[in-house]
Formats: sequence, C-alpha cells, structure tokens
Amino acid sequence: MKNTDGRVIERTPSAYNYPLLIKQLLHTPLANAPDQEIVYRDLSRYTYRGFAQRVAQQAHMLAALGVEAGDVVAVMDWDSHRYLESYFAVPMMGAALMTVNIRLSNDQIAYALDHSGASTLLVHADFLPVLEAIHPRLTQLKHIVLLQDALPAQTPLEVAGEYEALMAAQPTAFAFRDFDEDTLATTFYTTGTTGLPKAVYFSHRQIVLHTLAAAAGLGASAQDQRFHRGDVYMPLTPMFHVHAWGLPFVATLLGVKQVYPGRYRPEHIVDLVQREGVSFSHGVPTVLQMVLAAARGRRFEGWKIVSGGSVMPPHLCQEALAQGIDIFTGYGMSETCPLLTLAQRPAHEGQAVGEDFRLAAGWSIPLVDLRVVDESLRELPRDGAAVGEVVARAPWLTQGYRGNAEASEALWRGGYLHTQDMGRRDATGFLRLVDRIKDVIKTGGEWVSSLDLEQLLAAHPGVAEAAVVAAPCERWGERPIAVVVRRPGNDSATEQVLRGMVLEQAAKGLLPRYAVPDRIHFVDAIDKTSVGKFDKKLLRQKFGAEPASALA
Amino acid sequence: MKNTDGRVIERTPSAYNYPLLIKQLLHTPLANAPDQEIVYRDLSRYTYRGFAQRVAQQAHMLAALGVEAGDVVAVMDWDSHRYLESYFAVPMMGAALMTVNIRLSNDQIAYALDHSGASTLLVHADFLPVLEAIHPRLTQLKHIVLLQDALPAQTPLEVAGEYEALMAAQPTAFAFRDFDEDTLATTFYTTGTTGLPKAVYFSHRQIVLHTLAAAAGLGASAQDQRFHRGDVYMPLTPMFHVHAWGLPFVATLLGVKQVYPGRYRPEHIVDLVQREGVSFSHGVPTVLQMVLAAARGRRFEGWKIVSGGSVMPPHLCQEALAQGIDIFTGYGMSETCPLLTLAQRPAHEGQAVGEDFRLAAGWSIPLVDLRVVDESLRELPRDGAAVGEVVARAPWLTQGYRGNAEASEALWRGGYLHTQDMGRRDATGFLRLVDRIKDVIKTGGEWVSSLDLEQLLAAHPGVAEAAVVAAPCERWGERPIAVVVRRPGNDSATEQVLRGMVLEQAAKGLLPRYAVPDRIHFVDAIDKTSVGKFDKKLLRQKFGAEPASALA
Repeated sequence: MKNTDGRVIERTPSAYNYPLLIKQLLHTPLANAPDQEIVYRDLSRYTYRGFAQRVAQQAHMLAALGVEAGDVVAVMDWDSHRYLESYFAVPMMGAALMTVNIRLSNDQIAYALDHSGASTLLVHADFLPVLEAIHPRLTQLKHIVLLQDALPAQTPLEVAGEYEALMAAQPTAFAFRDFDEDTLATTFYTTGTTGLPKAVYFSHRQIVLHTLAAAAGLGASAQDQRFHRGDVYMPLTPMFHVHAWGLPFVATLLGVKQVYPGRYRPEHIVDLVQREGVSFSHGVPTVLQMVLAAARGRRFEGWKIVSGGSVMPPHLCQEALAQGIDIFTGYGMSETCPLLTLAQRPAHEGQAVGEDFRLAAGWSIPLVDLRVVDESLRELPRDGAAVGEVVARAPWLTQGYRGNAEASEALWRGGYLHTQDMGRRDATGFLRLVDRIKDVIKTGGEWVSSLDLEQLLAAHPGVAEAAVVAAPCERWGERPIAVVVRRPGNDSATEQVLRGMVLEQAAKGLLPRYAVPDRIHFVDAIDKTSVGKFDKKLLRQKFGAEPASALA
Repeated sequence: MKNTDGRVIERTPSAYNYPLLIKQLLHTPLANAPDQEIVYRDLSRYTYRGFAQRVAQQAHMLAALGVEAGDVVAVMDWDSHRYLESYFAVPMMGAALMTVNIRLSNDQIAYALDHSGASTLLVHADFLPVLEAIHPRLTQLKHIVLLQDALPAQTPLEVAGEYEALMAAQPTAFAFRDFDEDTLATTFYTTGTTGLPKAVYFSHRQIVLHTLAAAAGLGASAQDQRFHRGDVYMPLTPMFHVHAWGLPFVATLLGVKQVYPGRYRPEHIVDLVQREGVSFSHGVPTVLQMVLAAARGRRFEGWKIVSGGSVMPPHLCQEALAQGIDIFTGYGMSETCPLLTLAQRPAHEGQAVGEDFRLAAGWSIPLVDLRVVDESLRELPRDGAAVGEVVARAPWLTQGYRGNAEASEALWRGGYLHTQDMGRRDATGFLRLVDRIKDVIKTGGEWVSSLDLEQLLAAHPGVAEAAVVAAPCERWGERPIAVVVRRPGNDSATEQVLRGMVLEQAAKGLLPRYAVPDRIHFVDAIDKTSVGKFDKKLLRQKFGAEPASALA
C-alpha cells in the first residue's frame, strides 16, 4: 500500500465513495428548506419540493425524446425557472447542458449549436425567428421543445411539443444514477473580437467545487458583501453566461428564495425586487446602470449586488451606494466558471485597502491559487505596484477549449490559466486590475491602463463615453489616444479640458504624466463588439495612425 | 468519448488537474492574511507567513529523520501551534498524521501507537511518563521528538532532539509535491465501551471537502451561530480528537486569528479569551461547564461556541446565554470527520423550530445526505415524531476501520454510515437526537430516551449527576432505572420527589407516562468510561437486575 506518493485510503466494500455530482447539491436544500419558494416573474411560483419534482419531470421528458447520457441539450431562454430546472436535470441525467448566448449573431449561434453537437434544443418562442433562420445549418439537431409564457407560438419548424405540456405527462421522481464526477456537465461558447466562438466546458466535480468555494467565500465576510440563507436571490447576469456566474447553484445549495426575472426590463426588475424582497443579485455594470436609472428615486436598502464582467465605473458605485445598495466587485471570466476573487470589506486591521475597495477585483476565494506574473511566469512582488498578467489555478477552471488544441495550450501555458488581464496585488493579496493585456498601453517602457484613462474621461459631465487605445509611436513605442462621445447638448468637453483633467490627476500622482493622450477624437458613436464592449481592435485600426493633417 | 455514463471531460496537456490536497487550503490565507496571528498561550505568537515557514521547517525536520511519504507520524501534545503545524506539514509531505488520545489508558495508547505503525512520535514532556512506561511495546517507533514549553525535560529514552532546536536548523521553504487526493492524511483511534480501539482515517480530499462544507455551513447563517473572517478562533476540543472537529483547518482557510490554549486550565482559558478577543470556539459540555464556572461573573459578549460530543444540558445553555455566549450544537462523531449538522437559528419563517433550537442536532451541512431510517434502511416520515437510526453519506466519512473488516462492514451496512444514534426529523429537516441505539429504552413497544430522563433528573437542584439505563422486564421488555448522585449537603432529591418530577412532565405531555423510572439508585459516583462518558454497559450490569430486597 505504501509507495513514494503515500498511501491511498482503503474502502470497505459497502462504503459509499461519494462522487461530487450536481445532484448532491440538492440534499440539504430539499431537507432543510423544502417549502422555500422559486419565483418566475409574476407568472409562476413553486416550492423547492416542487422544483425537485420538475427536475425529475424534465429528465423524464428528455429521456422520452431519446436524450441519453453523453448527449448535449441546448437552451435558449431568458432567465427563468425552466432554465434553473435545466441546470440540474440535464447534467444529473448524464447529459451536457449547452447554454446559448442569445446576443450573438445568427451566424455565431448556428456555429456554436452545431459545433456543440446539441441534439435537443429548448427554445423560448421569442427566439423562433433566429432558430427558423439558422435551422438548415443545425445538422445534428433532432428535437425542439418550445418554451412560452403567453400565447401559443406559431412556427413552421417541427417541434416535439410545448415544455409545460410535455412536462405534465411525466412522473415526478427520477432515479438519477451515480457516475464519474469528471463527466461533462455544461458547455458554452465565448467570443473574442476575432475568430470563431470557443467552447469552454465544466464537469460535475468542477461545478460542485465552485459552488462550495463560492458559498464559503461569499459567506465568510465579517459583515456586508455576504450571501446567506436569509437572502432572496435574483440574477441580473443572463443564465446563458457562465451559469449566471454559478450563483443559481449557490442559491439552491443555500436553500434561499430565488426570483427569476425573465427578459431584462428595468422597470419590471425594480418592481420585482421590491415585491419579492430581493436582497442578493449580480450583473454587469451596463445592466445595473439601467436598473438604477429605472428606480427613479426609490431606494433599495439591503440589496447586495456583485458587479462583474467589466470594471465597475466609480459613478455607478456611488449611485448604487446612494440608493442603499451594498455593491461590490467579483472577478472572473467564462474560462474560470467564473469566480476567482471578491472585493469584500477587509475583515481586520491588517487588511486595510482603502474605501474604494468595492471597485477592485479583491481577494481570491478559497482554493484559488492566484498569481500576478511576468512573461516567464515568475511571481511579481506583492507590493501594490508591480504590474503583470493574472494567472490562476483552481479546481473549476476549464481544461481547454473543445476542439481547439492550440488555443487550449495557449490558455494553459506553463500550467497556469492565463486570464489575459494585467493586474497588481498588494501585501494583503488584494488584486487590482489594470487592463486587458491587449489593451494596455506600453509607453516609454511603462504601463498605462486604458481603463483608468477611460474612467477618468467618462467622469467629465460633458462626456457620454470614452475609449482609449494605443497608437504606435516611433519614439515611445506606443502612445494613448482617446475616442470620445460628447453628451448631447453639452459641448463642455473639449480636447483642452480633457487633457487638463488628466494633467491634474498626474499632478496629484494618481496617473503618470505620460498618460496624457496624444490625441482626442470626438465621434458620434464608439464601435462595439457583439457583446457590447468597445471594439478596440477596430478603434486601433481607425484611429491608431497619426492623422494626415497632423503630418502636414 | 460518449458512453452510457456521459462524457468525461478532456484536458489539454498543460492544464492543471487540481487535486484536493491539504496544501491547497493555504493559498488564500497566505495571500490574503499573511500578517494575521497564531497565538500559543502566553508563550508564543507568529504570523501566517511565519506559520508557513514553520510548516516547511517541520517537513524538513521530519524528512531529515527519514520520514517519507506513506509513513505515519504520531503526536502527543496539548492544543498548540506545534499541533497545528503537524496538521499541515505531515500530510502535506505525503505522510499520515496520527493524533494520540492522551486520555486513554497506557494500554490503549500503546495498542493504538503500535497498530498505526507510527515510526516517529512528537511528544510533549508532560507525557514522557506514559511513553517511558509503554516504550518497550512500540516495536515500530524509530524517532522521538520532544516538545516542551519550559525547562528541558529529562528522560532515559533516546530522543532525536527537541522540537524547536531541530526546527531552527531547517530551511523555511519546502517543495510540497502533488499526489493522489485519496492519499491517507490523518488517522486516530476511537473507543467504545467494549473491544480494542478502532482506527478511523481520512484522506486529503476528505479533509479539504469537510473544510469547505464546514466553512460554507458555518458561514451561511443569516445572523448568529456563524464563523467568519473577522472572528478569533480557539479550540476547546482537544486537537487529538477528530482534528478538533476539523475547525483548525476551517480557521486557517479563513485566515482568522487563532489562539491555542495548551492544557485546559479553566482560569487560563478565561484570561486568554478576554486578552486575545476570542470569538469562536467549540467543545464538549463538560469542558464548557468548567470554563463558565471559572468566569466568576465575567461576561463573554460575542463569544460563539459550538457544543458537541454529547447532548448539551439545558442548564449549560441557559448559563452560557446569560453570560453573553451564543452557544449552539454541532453533531458528528469520530467516524464522520466529524461535522454532519449544525443547530443554527432558522433563516426564514418556513423553518420555525422553537426557541430551544440550540439544544438539538440541527440542520445538515452542505453535501450531507442524512436520513432517519428503520431497520430496513427505509427513510421514516419527516414528521418530528418517528424515531429511527440516523444514517448518512457525505464526502468525508471514514471508509472503514483499518484492519477491522467486520466492524467496517457493520459501519457501512447498506451503503450508509450508521451513526448508532436514534433521532427524529421534522418537515424542515431539523434533527433532534433521542439516544444512542444501545442506550435507548424500549418499553411496551415504545422508545424512551435515557438522555431526556437524565436531563430532567439533572435539572433538580439536589442532583449532581444522573444516569438512566434499561433494566430487563418480563412484562414490558425493558424498564428505565435511574442512578443518581446527590449534591453534597443537599438531600432534597428523594426517590419520591424525582419520580414526582417525571410524572409532572408526563402530565404536561412532555414525556410518556411509562418513562417514570421503576427504581432510583442513589450512589456516591457513577461509573464512567475512559473518555468520561457514563459507562452504561457497567451500569446495566450493576443495577439492571431487580434488587434482592425487592424480590423478597
């Protein structure tokens, strides 16, 4: 039994060698909170007991359609109880759940659906026009199940039936078997500004461990920025996006009341939050901004929101706090399941990090081995200053991009997952992001963060939006240039004024002097990618070269 | 790739396939709380950064003694920073940590040490007399390392050296390798009232999962009964006993300040709690009682204590609450690593369980599949009334007793771990223990809890201690009899008075009428086992037969 690696434990034949399967997340909520509610808009509500029955019904429904372990079941829906049912039923029967990003182009959706090998698709009636357009390209799709909230939908496509009608016919118990915890549970596609969407994927073990570590990390905060059993949960991150940050799994494990808002309509969300007593949510800044704007002066005392996906603008943070919201940042990405860090308030004096802690990436959650490294993967000093790439190990990081060996190896170069984010870390482990690797500007051998500059420029009352990119420069390597959209009816943001703002920050030591943009281009709109981020590749092409007039 | 069990995920060659090893618990505390303190009595204090260096030094020290992966290293010490170092260093180098119950008889200690195959022993000077007495029987022991707090100890045994002196010579970094997460990490011996001590054992994976689930369970409470990053931790459960309930691992993961009290001296503990600001502890009722008694009117506002190991007496709960302590119950045992349930306050209205919630076993923690079953392993109704055995599955339960196939199979009969505790569970999953299977009294086809009766009798001001056991009875099968120690100088507790108390409870419907003991024996002392529990086997022998006088 003894060997150079120690002894592996023995098991008596009758012992249960407990695999980390998604079904195991249900033991405690079903025992301890069976009467807790799961709510979908103003359309439906049922208990966890009822939820478990519907998970069984969905598995029976899929099995009746011929879905087997190893198959892929895709979902196109708004945030709903049906989506939550799919989070459990599909993987629990040994199949893989593919969540479709409904914001992609028809071309990208068709590519992803076909590449995933999905044989069955649950599709909301709102997306029938997309499905009808791309259907001829979905060579492996066998069954379509229709999800709808209101009137029966019409489609020329052949559908297996309507979800509720198919569910109603099924038994309310299903014998979910045990299997290998490394079995594929979920997959979805991530898009950059270039190339085809890439498939990330997660096993049962990975999702269970992410759920436990997220629950431990979110629960361990001394006071605020915490998710606990008394909370009421509602996602404001779409459920197709990294399992809504994995938080529906955490919410279910904790047995909290859950509220699913359907399609994001800010006024409806505000009503739902107040009517159902929502106290814990998460979303990207753009969505949060829309919800706050729709509040029209109403306050949200006790609502905790994790902001993520892109850097939280300071003005959003101020507005949220002013409305009674405990807002803070979570950091991660599609490849990381996603949680790596949380910006919770320091728990003791040794961790002083400043009052702006909510804006940073924050502290790594349990089990995350996070490092800021140079190009040789050597860890940089934790001095709050040294800037390098953020790399990580954790039990829940995608082990590659399916069918893309080259990108997989680049992702995992040297045995650490490369986030392609530049950051700096202080002696307490607190991580602050600087920029995306491809967007950071290297001028005269020093780093300038395009994000810092964008935040500063966007803080001017005359600026609606500001993007900063690198322009090649013979003398300094690169120089920052800005692309700015003025607020309608407000022309106070001139090139001179904005440069003056940057110089002022530089004088205070808050930005380097060489961060002052060489040029500021005023435009009507800034080019964006399909997921709403600045298309910096295009911006560099359009504005990177020095203008002819300046050469004249 | 597809098969009947689903698809196992692929890994790109460079991907890190993260094993659940104890060393991985250290990533976040070392990054996020490197300057946090670990305190040993009034004798030593250092930071987590220093702790990591000492863990490396201990591994080097053991390696220098010839300890290899697969070896067993035993520890005999009071609760100390040295013990905490051993919790990490020994398993992290691939060896197994054996924690020696220093309360056992010399015979039992000798048996356990030899049976474990321990080749190296770290022993506190206080236990040298024991070691000297049993040393000839320790055929596999090669090295003794001496732990001491004060004067150099004298012993005729050959020792490798003194711990601090050996440590000081070692480098402060150690390259801990990755290995199989199912590798044996810890082992210790559990004693019943009969037979030889039995070895339970836990793997790295089991300890990591127990730590995560305990952190999630302890963190998820809505308000009180919570363990968080702002707490200061001190165990009052010996570190030889089920890893001090695994909570030093949880405390380390959270990066909290930790305080180790050495040998339990109630007055010193009270001082330490107040001086270091201790806010989270755990212990058996007997120890807690001694500490509260030593407080002499001082209050402990904000001190949270988990009581476990045996049922918490109501008067202890009242006294603790009156002294400002947030006391509550945790349930588990040596075989279960140990945490299965926590008696935290209900988080929402659907979970009303009464104000005495602190005394019950409570709610299962994440991933625990807990059931109350009949003898055919059929789950009983969750109605708060049906009594059956508590059985469980969780990822951290011992997979057997080493070298004891028969007891291992009995433990895991039917694929569930048998706790040998009788309990009842209500519709919210809240578990209340009734009795140990072997102690519960079956009279006229109904269960009577010896614990309920003991608690009631002990509540009388004239009673110092009370044990209740079954006496065989031809008519009713079994009948309860009581063995009572009167308080010195107080003879108010007569047989008539005590029977009257039980009848009064029966009249209120709080106990069955047939629970009134047939006989009450007044004695000077109640026989106890080596670990301080009532020796009910002996009591049944001594008092179970009807007394000759009654037959006359």
